[in-house]
Amino acid sequence: MSGVIVTGPPKASAQEVQALAGYGVATVHEAMGRTGLLGTGIRPVQQGVRVAGTAVTVLSWPGDNLMIHAAVEQCADGDLLVVTTTSPSTDGLFGELFATALQRRGVRGLVIDAGVRDTQELRAMDFPAWSRAVSAQGTVKATGGSVNIPIAIGGQVIHPGDVILADDDGVVVVPRADARRTAEAAEAREHKEAASRAAFQEGELGLDRYGLRETLERLGVRYQAYGA
Amino acid sequence: MSGVIVTGPPKASAQEVQALAGYGVATVHEAMGRTGLLGTGIRPVQQGVRVAGTAVTVLSWPGDNLMIHAAVEQCADGDLLVVTTTSPSTDGLFGELFATALQRRGVRGLVIDAGVRDTQELRAMDFPAWSRAVSAQGTVKATGGSVNIPIAIGGQVIHPGDVILADDDGVVVVPRADARRTAEAAEAREHKEAASRAAFQEGELGLDRYGLRETLERLGVRYQAYGA
Amino acid sequence: MSGVIVTGPPKASAQEVQALAGYGVATVHEAMGRTGLLGTGIRPVQQGVRVAGTAVTVLSWPGDNLMIHAAVEQCADGDLLVVTTTSPSTDGLFGELFATALQRRGVRGLVIDAGVRDTQELRAMDFPAWSRAVSAQGTVKATGGSVNIPIAIGGQVIHPGDVILADDDGVVVVPRADARRTAEAAEAREHKEAASRAAFQEGELGLDRYGLRETLERLGVRYQAYGA
Amino acid sequence: MSGVIVTGPPKASAQEVQALAGYGVATVHEAMGRTGLLGTGIRPVQQGVRVAGTAVTVLSWPGDNLMIHAAVEQCADGDLLVVTTTSPSTDGLFGELFATALQRRGVRGLVIDAGVRDTQELRAMDFPAWSRAVSAQGTVKATGGSVNIPIAIGGQVIHPGDVILADDDGVVVVPRADARRTAEAAEAREHKEAASRAAFQEGELGLDRYGLRETLERLGVRYQAYGA
Amino acid sequence: MSGVIVTGPPKASAQEVQALAGYGVATVHEAMGRTGLLGTGIRPVQQGVRVAGTAVTVLSWPGDNLMIHAAVEQCADGDLLVVTTTSPSTDGLFGELFATALQRRGVRGLVIDAGVRDTQELRAMDFPAWSRAVSAQGTVKATGGSVNIPIAIGGQVIHPGDVILADDDGVVVVPRADARRTAEAAEAREHKEAASRAAFQEGELGLDRYGLRETLERLGVRYQAYGA
Amino acid sequence: MSGVIVTGPPKASAQEVQALAGYGVATVHEAMGRTGLLGTGIRPVQQGVRVAGTAVTVLSWPGDNLMIHAAVEQCADGDLLVVTTTSPSTDGLFGELFATALQRRGVRGLVIDAGVRDTQELRAMDFPAWSRAVSAQGTVKATGGSVNIPIAIGGQVIHPGDVILADDDGVVVVPRADARRTAEAAEAREHKEAASRAAFQEGELGLDRYGLRETLERLGVRYQAYGA
Repeated sequence: MSGVIVTGPPKASAQEVQALAGYGVATVHEAMGRTGLLGTGIRPVQQGVRVAGTAVTVLSWPGDNLMIHAAVEQCADGDLLVVTTTSPSTDGLFGELFATALQRRGVRGLVIDAGVRDTQELRAMDFPAWSRAVSAQGTVKATGGSVNIPIAIGGQVIHPGDVILADDDGVVVVPRADARRTAEAAEAREHKEAASRAAFQEGELGLDRYGLRETLERLGVRYQAYGA
Repeated sequence: MSGVIVTGPPKASAQEVQALAGYGVATVHEAMGRTGLLGTGIRPVQQGVRVAGTAVTVLSWPGDNLMIHAAVEQCADGDLLVVTTTSPSTDGLFGELFATALQRRGVRGLVIDAGVRDTQELRAMDFPAWSRAVSAQGTVKATGGSVNIPIAIGGQVIHPGDVILADDDGVVVVPRADARRTAEAAEAREHKEAASRAAFQEGELGLDRYGLRETLERLGVRYQAYGA
Repeated sequence: MSGVIVTGPPKASAQEVQALAGYGVATVHEAMGRTGLLGTGIRPVQQGVRVAGTAVTVLSWPGDNLMIHAAVEQCADGDLLVVTTTSPSTDGLFGELFATALQRRGVRGLVIDAGVRDTQELRAMDFPAWSRAVSAQGTVKATGGSVNIPIAIGGQVIHPGDVILADDDGVVVVPRADARRTAEAAEAREHKEAASRAAFQEGELGLDRYGLRETLERLGVRYQAYGA
Repeated sequence: MSGVIVTGPPKASAQEVQALAGYGVATVHEAMGRTGLLGTGIRPVQQGVRVAGTAVTVLSWPGDNLMIHAAVEQCADGDLLVVTTTSPSTDGLFGELFATALQRRGVRGLVIDAGVRDTQELRAMDFPAWSRAVSAQGTVKATGGSVNIPIAIGGQVIHPGDVILADDDGVVVVPRADARRTAEAAEAREHKEAASRAAFQEGELGLDRYGLRETLERLGVRYQAYGA
Repeated sequence: MSGVIVTGPPKASAQEVQALAGYGVATVHEAMGRTGLLGTGIRPVQQGVRVAGTAVTVLSWPGDNLMIHAAVEQCADGDLLVVTTTSPSTDGLFGELFATALQRRGVRGLVIDAGVRDTQELRAMDFPAWSRAVSAQGTVKATGGSVNIPIAIGGQVIHPGDVILADDDGVVVVPRADARRTAEAAEAREHKEAASRAAFQEGELGLDRYGLRETLERLGVRYQAYGA
Repeated sequence: MSGVIVTGPPKASAQEVQALAGYGVATVHEAMGRTGLLGTGIRPVQQGVRVAGTAVTVLSWPGDNLMIHAAVEQCADGDLLVVTTTSPSTDGLFGELFATALQRRGVRGLVIDAGVRDTQELRAMDFPAWSRAVSAQGTVKATGGSVNIPIAIGGQVIHPGDVILADDDGVVVVPRADARRTAEAAEAREHKEAASRAAFQEGELGLDRYGLRETLERLGVRYQAYGA
């Protein structure tokens, strides 16, 4: 298999990433009109970590991490490596040595639609990872693939340079062109949620706050006393 | 889709819940004759928490949390919210704002056969949750459903007012009418287990303690020296 | 169902186990030529624990833990219990009472291709376990099976007396006859990895260190400037 | 494990079953307000068969078909056997010999939330089956269970005597008390669908027939020419 | 949820579709450098059918088929409807009435990353479908979505107007711009395969035909007589 | 990755295979004491075919079919190819060209714990296959593996030369040394089943035939009239 390594793709700016970095994955997903989630199959190997960075994308052959080696060279400070495979694989394509090399370059973490290994070491060195599987299974370096081409994970397309945000709830991709607008929408949403939170703490009901009693009535949902 | 919101269902008493609250899920499941487990697919988003409460049940449309809003109003101190969907869904139907509203009302936790989000926040605010998935995926409020009707999760039927017990091993439902009897059986079982634990610590074998050597013999299981 | 309990199988020596115990699962798997992993479905119920021991193997009927009782008697100091079932099962065949009995005998942990329960208690008593599922589901003691026969989990054959190594990355089996040679290969690999780690910390690239630029060229992977 | 065999439960009448038998599973599910489906995991082992019958229910231990033997005696002409297990199992609890015994008694088919075997023979003898798995795995007769108690499959509760309808789309349960009303609603739905079918054959659009253009507009879905 | 219905997207020409229609999915996938497959989860509900058409794409909310109604109007002769949902769903979003409306318009089939129902009827009317699930589960028409925007299924991006090819092996997407070149490559591949087929029928080995003996030697794979 | 190709392994004789060939997979599995099944995940791509042959085993790298090419040369009349991968893969490692080469050599079919493609062609040429997945995904020939070493699928170990039997119920392996004895036990079982079949056709109950009423009583399963 052949492939291509794209160099120098445009990236969201550090300010744009920074503006998004404070928000949770759920908030940013909502701020984009409920889009961008990479699905429930990609889970963190640590707990309580939230990171944001610009995507360097990798398409690898299953059981082969050659293209991750090629991708390391394309990674710079503030990036986040995003890897998928041409067909489903749970193999441990990524481990502590890669994390060492990436951390040296200022890379903020890994998202991989495959397996990761050395998870104890990754946690110890504070290199966060989100993966489909944890697997010690080793790989070869025999088949080509691509770096910095658009890839799709969980029904979402990720272009190199897009903003990736990840926390305990999962991973969301923000297209580069939407970064600024999304940060503003996220801020607005947080304000709105803060107000709702305060109201709920006071005992207000979502039924009233969001006008849902009318919705229930329109849908024909009726109240009925137990046993009546 | 229409539906019904049942108000004022009878509930297990606070004393009955309290009597069960000290036991683990495995113990209570055994005390009921090995019934009542909601299966291995519903997992805690935190570790080391054990809760008990009376069920407020919700049947929601996939991708829609309208009926959870309706259910909040039906929740009172000592309840535990139990949510399922009309067809399988991993969407994040429940998050931190709902937990805020429920915590205000004295609700003890959430069991959901779907997704949950804001898991970092839920852990931080000590609102425990058991779910099939963690997902930031947002939902709409467009389709009806029901509150406080019998629902089934993992092959078990849950009626409103039943006792729900949850810990790291999973979730068990105790029918309201069986609460007292189950608490007594759980206590008896714990005594029996304490005696077994002490015996095992002394080196006694289960083979002898439970009379299993005869069982093995009856079944024709034979001993054979390696290589013989 | 009948079966056989094999007594006195040869085991890897304590020195052989000790020689392997210091290495991670991924390292040992690599040292054996990328073999021996029990797959990604067997996960730890605790975090940050690494153990090694000699296998006592069990083949149980689903929903039945009779043969684990029989196996306890065959377990000795330094062993690690490895259980599978004749057909897939997530039931909680193993819990805290078994762990108590095994800990008394010096057994180092459990690997089970089925469910485990009492996970809070297992963590509290420092008895590590790796399992396919967590489940409070109780079992019967009604059907025969075997102890200390070869079993297969995740495509790997485990003979009694083989060395089992487990950590957060999963579980690996080292055939008894390969223990010494594998420990030596693991040591060699660790030295090699230490050198790579140091090089990567200095900024060297895997592309250069492993001679992968030629591989990419041979495969026809080409570099291309973005937008070119 | 103990259990109970309930004899002589009331059943939907032959006329009620007959009235429902002509309709597809999808139609009947809709006629009940979109309830009653046993989920997508229970699949037919044959193609093009549609059956209806009254449920005889069985709760078995995994890997054990003792209670199916007990259930055969409870089966009569027009019944349909519905089996589940106390925990998930794919074992072949049912095969050609059971089908022979049931066919002799006028039983119309099998629904099993577990495995079935002898599928070639079942097709050859025209005994239809819907199952979660196909598996030659044999079972024991060692552990108790129950016959004709309420069971839950795929989130639906099935009482003995309920009507079961199954075809290539899956399986639906109609509670005994709702059989007549459901048959009427199914007939009404078929008339409505026949009219829609004719209209669609003439080229009418669902958008117009169901008034959905307003829905799209209310939701803010907008039309946009490509490239505009 | 809002959304957009894109009208008048450019499509691969009828000639381009025709040129591809004769080839199998595997052949076309290879002709594109082993890309374009929608994965193993999308399976045909019939056997032995091969179709090709231009994609009309739909993004629906789970449990909601409103946007399929909107899409019907956008479908024309030679199209093939391709549907996905914003989050995973197995619901039966599509059935016989939709097929009737689409068949009237000359649409060649359905690919859906969700459920389909009325499968007996679909086979009877020769409207082929590929789906993730078969499910009678009905849906609502309450939430917006989009038509003719790019969607991603199984890691592949599908644009409206792309060529979709489906047979018993699965589904492949050919980007519109690559249609002609892919048809040529597929033809070349078929010629090559015909020659290989003839050679294999004569007893030639792939080892010799493809020069793989050297590969084995280079990789260090050695021959060894049994027992040696 | 290196590996080994073992030549000239001993095989079950044609007579032994022939003696087993008449029996179904379920019968042979029972005749071996309920062992030998390769699990429910390996399914036939055709219907109504039953084959038996001697195993030629292959261990391949995921996404790589180099070793199948090596295995073809080791295949002779009466063999059946059995393939697994070092880690889980659904890729289409096998298709019509391989089947052509194997059919020329008298090979009777394929069992693969991975994907197969060209399924329409395989059915047309009467080359039966059992696989974990159907996938058009193509593969490379870049990484080593082994031929005719012991492999494990679904918890069963398969040695080269063992007898493989496959039909619609799945796949069973009979160790070479057990072939004769198993054929005899299968014949005995068929006689016993024929007698049971005749008895069941006459209306006898399994409860009586197998003495299960006592079992139910011993287990404490009680009869209870409905509503009593």
